[in-house]
Amino acid sequence: MTAKKELAVVLVSGGMDSCVTAALATQEYNLAFLHLSYGQRTQQRERRAFEEVADFYRVEKRLVARFDHFRQIGGSSLTDRRIPVSKANLESREIPSSYVPFRNAHFLVVGVSWAETLGASRVFFGAVWDDSSGYPDCRPEYYQAFNQLVRLGTKPETQIEVVTPLIHLQKHQIVRRGIELGAPLHLTWSCYQDAEEACGTCESCALRLRAFAQAGCEDAIAYKVKVSYT
Amino acid sequence: MTAKKELAVVLVSGGMDSCVTAALATQEYNLAFLHLSYGQRTQQRERRAFEEVADFYRVEKRLVARFDHFRQIGGSSLTDRRIPVSKANLESREIPSSYVPFRNAHFLVVGVSWAETLGASRVFFGAVWDDSSGYPDCRPEYYQAFNQLVRLGTKPETQIEVVTPLIHLQKHQIVRRGIELGAPLHLTWSCYQDAEEACGTCESCALRLRAFAQAGCEDAIAYKVKVSYT
Repeated sequence: MTAKKELAVVLVSGGMDSCVTAALATQEYNLAFLHLSYGQRTQQRERRAFEEVADFYRVEKRLVARFDHFRQIGGSSLTDRRIPVSKANLESREIPSSYVPFRNAHFLVVGVSWAETLGASRVFFGAVWDDSSGYPDCRPEYYQAFNQLVRLGTKPETQIEVVTPLIHLQKHQIVRRGIELGAPLHLTWSCYQDAEEACGTCESCALRLRAFAQAGCEDAIAYKVKVSYT
Repeated sequence: MTAKKELAVVLVSGGMDSCVTAALATQEYNLAFLHLSYGQRTQQRERRAFEEVADFYRVEKRLVARFDHFRQIGGSSLTDRRIPVSKANLESREIPSSYVPFRNAHFLVVGVSWAETLGASRVFFGAVWDDSSGYPDCRPEYYQAFNQLVRLGTKPETQIEVVTPLIHLQKHQIVRRGIELGAPLHLTWSCYQDAEEACGTCESCALRLRAFAQAGCEDAIAYKVKVSYT
């Protein structure tokens, strides 16, 4: 195919979901990678994962935006060192301490503004409904509402749409899809607690380990404690 | 009345509209003031206006957030020094060079996150539809869509609503309302171009001068050139 591809902005956190999202996006679009750093405990490790995934896909357009105000706003264990990261409880329906109020909207608005400036037509975001036991901003309706906002709030000649291709997948399906697409999952980082070896016990590690176990695959990153979750 | 007032976050740019919005909000709510600094040419002058208006209303809870990424995203004469600030053309229906793609959404999401952390029930924003010749994100429908997003994206127990009490007012009505409410308009700053004396010729100065003229009032701030707009 020689047709010129359109451009898409992909929000790449450094985690597994955004890596698989990039693997899907690259099939149809040229990519621009956006990373948000917001004072989370593991921000340097996530930034490294972002750069390595960008290198893997040979992405030249990269934007790293810093949100110092997340720390000022407070209220989350991800950015407030006084609030401990809770241990995983995959049965709980409570909003976990890592919740940052209205977080995804911050990320998406940067994505949309950058897309309008670049002339990109899509903003890819790896939101997962399975994740959303506690996070209200992972629901499919939320992204419908967001796209309505984008239609009303951008220049009439733009046709930017936020797409969330993983939203209805289970975590283990995401792992499988990533492996099928050759996504570099070994370069990604999920742990909320540590940066050298993944802690294996925080909520994010637990979700990742369970996903690999259910997919019947081995996770190639290093863990301090490799707990079996099923 | 001795009933305890609820808390409201007010987005205060340092301009006239947000000052009158604060004057309205203070009648029913305790106030928390939020200011966004995004590398605009006159950011120090606007910050000073913000602090002076906050002092005037004796607001203790203040948050100043910096958006360095607006400059990285580019595309606007407000933040990109290579793009000149256009002279006012109040008849034009074109999007002015000061347009920052999807700008208001950035401000509002910070307001909503902070409101959720503070337990505030309202986010006041001085958007004006009269202003919106060129800005798609000043339309009333845009704020309806935004509130839908807030309902879906915040914790179920929160009842945060974005309110835009000036949206259907003309600029000269805003000036009149401000004067009636004793709002400190003399402390506010509108010019996009200069910080010592207002230039009097940029789009924002033109709108302000015309508003005072139509309201039949004198604007107390200093101008380099005080053009008559009618």
